Amino acid sequence: MGNRTVYCGLVDKENLEQTVTLQGWVQKRRDLGGVIFIDLRDREGIVQVVFNPKNSQNAWETADTCRSEYVLEVTGIVKKRDEEAINPNMQTGEFEVMASDITVLNTSKTPPFSIEEDTKAGDEIRLKYRYLDLRRSNMTQNLMLRAKVTQTIRRYLDDHKFLDIETPFLGKSTPEGARDYLVPSRVHPGHFYALPQSPQIFKQLLMNAGFDRYYQIVRCFRDEDLRGDRQPEFTQVDIEASFLTPEDIQEYTEQMLAQVMKVARGIDIPLPFPKMTWDEAMNRFGSDKPDTRFAMELIDLSDVVKDVDFKVFQMALQNGGTVKALNAKGAADKYSRKDMDHLAQYASQFGAKGLAWLKVEEDGLKGPIAKFLTSVEDALIAKTNAEVGDLIMFGADSFEVVTATLGAVRTHLAKELDLIDSSKFNFLWVVDWPQFEYDKEEGRYVSAHHPFTMPKEEDIPYLQTDPAKVNAQAYDVVLNGYELGGGSLRIHTRELQEQVFRTLGFTQEKMNEQFDFLLEALDYGFPPHGGIALGLDRLVMLVAGEDNIREVMAFPKNGKAMDPMTHAPSTVSPLQLYELNIDVTDTEE
Amino acid sequence: MGNRTVYCGLVDKENLEQTVTLQGWVQKRRDLGGVIFIDLRDREGIVQVVFNPKNSQNAWETADTCRSEYVLEVTGIVKKRDEEAINPNMQTGEFEVMASDITVLNTSKTPPFSIEEDTKAGDEIRLKYRYLDLRRSNMTQNLMLRAKVTQTIRRYLDDHKFLDIETPFLGKSTPEGARDYLVPSRVHPGHFYALPQSPQIFKQLLMNAGFDRYYQIVRCFRDEDLRGDRQPEFTQVDIEASFLTPEDIQEYTEQMLAQVMKVARGIDIPLPFPKMTWDEAMNRFGSDKPDTRFAMELIDLSDVVKDVDFKVFQMALQNGGTVKALNAKGAADKYSRKDMDHLAQYASQFGAKGLAWLKVEEDGLKGPIAKFLTSVEDALIAKTNAEVGDLIMFGADSFEVVTATLGAVRTHLAKELDLIDSSKFNFLWVVDWPQFEYDKEEGRYVSAHHPFTMPKEEDIPYLQTDPAKVNAQAYDVVLNGYELGGGSLRIHTRELQEQVFRTLGFTQEKMNEQFDFLLEALDYGFPPHGGIALGLDRLVMLVAGEDNIREVMAFPKNGKAMDPMTHAPSTVSPLQLYELNIDVTDTEE
Repeated sequence: MGNRTVYCGLVDKENLEQTVTLQGWVQKRRDLGGVIFIDLRDREGIVQVVFNPKNSQNAWETADTCRSEYVLEVTGIVKKRDEEAINPNMQTGEFEVMASDITVLNTSKTPPFSIEEDTKAGDEIRLKYRYLDLRRSNMTQNLMLRAKVTQTIRRYLDDHKFLDIETPFLGKSTPEGARDYLVPSRVHPGHFYALPQSPQIFKQLLMNAGFDRYYQIVRCFRDEDLRGDRQPEFTQVDIEASFLTPEDIQEYTEQMLAQVMKVARGIDIPLPFPKMTWDEAMNRFGSDKPDTRFAMELIDLSDVVKDVDFKVFQMALQNGGTVKALNAKGAADKYSRKDMDHLAQYASQFGAKGLAWLKVEEDGLKGPIAKFLTSVEDALIAKTNAEVGDLIMFGADSFEVVTATLGAVRTHLAKELDLIDSSKFNFLWVVDWPQFEYDKEEGRYVSAHHPFTMPKEEDIPYLQTDPAKVNAQAYDVVLNGYELGGGSLRIHTRELQEQVFRTLGFTQEKMNEQFDFLLEALDYGFPPHGGIALGLDRLVMLVAGEDNIREVMAFPKNGKAMDPMTHAPSTVSPLQLYELNIDVTDTEE
Repeated sequence: MGNRTVYCGLVDKENLEQTVTLQGWVQKRRDLGGVIFIDLRDREGIVQVVFNPKNSQNAWETADTCRSEYVLEVTGIVKKRDEEAINPNMQTGEFEVMASDITVLNTSKTPPFSIEEDTKAGDEIRLKYRYLDLRRSNMTQNLMLRAKVTQTIRRYLDDHKFLDIETPFLGKSTPEGARDYLVPSRVHPGHFYALPQSPQIFKQLLMNAGFDRYYQIVRCFRDEDLRGDRQPEFTQVDIEASFLTPEDIQEYTEQMLAQVMKVARGIDIPLPFPKMTWDEAMNRFGSDKPDTRFAMELIDLSDVVKDVDFKVFQMALQNGGTVKALNAKGAADKYSRKDMDHLAQYASQFGAKGLAWLKVEEDGLKGPIAKFLTSVEDALIAKTNAEVGDLIMFGADSFEVVTATLGAVRTHLAKELDLIDSSKFNFLWVVDWPQFEYDKEEGRYVSAHHPFTMPKEEDIPYLQTDPAKVNAQAYDVVLNGYELGGGSLRIHTRELQEQVFRTLGFTQEKMNEQFDFLLEALDYGFPPHGGIALGLDRLVMLVAGEDNIREVMAFPKNGKAMDPMTHAPSTVSPLQLYELNIDVTDTEE
């Protein structure tokens, strides 16, 4: 339907000598010796259209008036270009369309930035004119890739009997988790809906309703301070199933992601994904979402250095902490003393008080702390597999600080030393998560995932006696150092759910007030169930090879949670506030 | 994956003599002569499981402890039932599973209402225990049907090169249209996001970005007073395309809906859908969304009665109004004088001052106004095709009042007289809508669809001189008297868009303040484009044969926009309000 016979970017040898009709935007117009060449662009790509006054004087005259970003409909015959005119960098570079007819469907002012893959336009102007920014081929392709990823996920889940079921956006505010976006109720003064941070409880209730397998690709909201890969709203691939084991859910997830990689990138991902416990991930990579595309693992030296006379190490070990090292192979020459000071400063963000280091030279270990380690030099060299030219860094503190610090330094150095093969897609499961983290500020345990996560059966007795010991039937899927998603089995009995709430510091009254409906639901034949939620934006970002989720969203917010195009959020009328029974206590200019 | 080998409801002859493992809920348990029969239910249906102590004493003992809604895993052999035990009303009624093993996966308290297709439970209790309500087979099937409809729509659109692109939920409040739900910004005190009433402008901007074909199945929000088929949030199938004619867009929509009917109901809908202008729909059916499953059309009598000496008719005609009639064939006997009074009362809701009527008897027209019409009796009988036993009703007033009244009476009577064949699915296009409606309260023209609708080319001159004369390139798709969706071509030049805003009473300042980004976008090669938006909830409701969209939503709100299960909306903490820089001015208990 419509007049178009082929997309500009898809003109191919099948169209040779055929009359085609194209619709698109003027990417470029050149006049070469009285012949006009227009690169015409649509979402699929660009094709060269030739206006020769000998073919059609009318068409030539119209083409002569066209400027960048005019919208044209062009009819002509597809020809093979002369050998010397072939453009091998262009999908349609072997062809050109000899135009016989042209209609200008709309004109355009000169855009504020050029519509090219590499733009120098800043983020704000790109967002303000997002409709122009999205015309750039890489952005167009990113969103088309996103549609393909979404479609692939849906088809996989449809084909495996997962039902697409919608859950409410106007929900109830709950205190566990991040800050909610609230929506004042007009009908119920002083009452508020909350936008969902995830449909977690609703999907569990759908399992209780017997739907057996559910999925939804759904918008979620968190009113948190923004970072590079965070947005106020984000999209989640939300999956839940009854009667399955964690391994079953992982297998479905793996197959689905492998299918995405196959369709979107043509890459065969080996299955199953490697699996690593949370303990192992922290010990070897200093991260619960390790990037395994490069080695440079953390090396535990607590045994090796347990008797050396270096106060920093001794203090750490005496306080129940640990001493670990990183060996940056062959990096000694690349880091001056000053560089190491900078690196120590970077490390201090993660809680480290310093970053001790050594260089391995022909005649032994050199560096500020070398003198303390002479007694264990051989053992240390053996354990770190040190060779001449290596740079060895140490972390000595609590387990949390050492792993956080060296994990961050590891990733930082990998980028600086160019250790990462960006063509790799290293998927990984991190399993056996702790059920709780201790929150020092709040002085209580909080959920590492969420309060509905099922503890490991054998750890249930520790819920009352030693919550730190409790591991969860929880699993995260990691890709190239990013958490793609997290899942778990969920609690399906009231008794256990109430025990977990108690461990989290809930009184019976508080849990009834906030979760009465869930607790009551647990009384009525709630099936064993579990699931997973994946961040779609992040998945597409990684598949697209981008480093910010904004590049794979049509209309993201800027770093201040604003849309520079529509000016949202905005002030509203006094009548709107009056109807909602709210007053504004402070107003930004 | 998982232990299940077949869903309960799908046990079939292929499973005969095989060992199967089932997982599901106890629908019913009976003990007949020491043998226990359990009807086990999952989302696909029910199968009978037999526990004979002779097969397994252990399994029998466990089965004996089971009660309604217990969750079981059962293993056994599928057998053909004895001839006399076959249940023809049950999908699996020829089979039963002789159990050898059973595990109770969870127990259940007695539900507050029974899990049966016909429940006597009221709406509130059904919503409070929605997870139980959804276990009822008709509700389970409704949501499974919805998933299938959604999937069918997506596949159709995917296959026709429409791209699934997500648009923001945190948008900008605009004054045109219904009341917005607002979301206070924490980062920008005194500023608010608005939840989308539709992604209208964003999808137009996606056309400007060159995506050519877009769709999204997307939640939308309107803070309006609730009615039977309205919810605060609803789901829209949102479609937009560039370079197509209204007929192209209609054809895609028809094919998509025909595919839905085929997949969801096995029905072949004849294509193309009939088309009717808005004028014709109003004149013949008194409705812009006519139910064409029955006739009883409105009959224009203005000519016939123009000279009769009946003041009501004369007044109507003199004021530029109209006189129309309905002929309820053979209904004279069914409506007493008192019934007609009730009907007149019903009609008065729609603005009518009364509902004049006649009955056709052997010796002529009888009834309160018969005496005024003797002079035109033959003409009237001829025009209304009146026969003995018919009941004829009259509307005489402005065109708006007459059509609204008789349109409503027509539908009302059709239900009372059982004229509607509920197996019919009558799709219909209503085209050539007026561009504007005059809003007496506001004293200005408002958009019949929305301000971005393209007027008919030939009517553009009337934008300034006589807006009432302007028709739009707009089309609604109607099914069985419900508006399924509406679409139009959109304006793609700044000049025309500004002219329409001016006709709507916008000053230049106001349009710049509210729509500067759209007007600016129109400067940069905006392609000709148009689209449609369909109400998914309503479509599924009609396909499912339900009469309220709540029956096809997993977790709807009640008539007060509340969720009786989670108690949303709720009060929130003072800290939350403080962080959002708002105060509550009134609180409901």
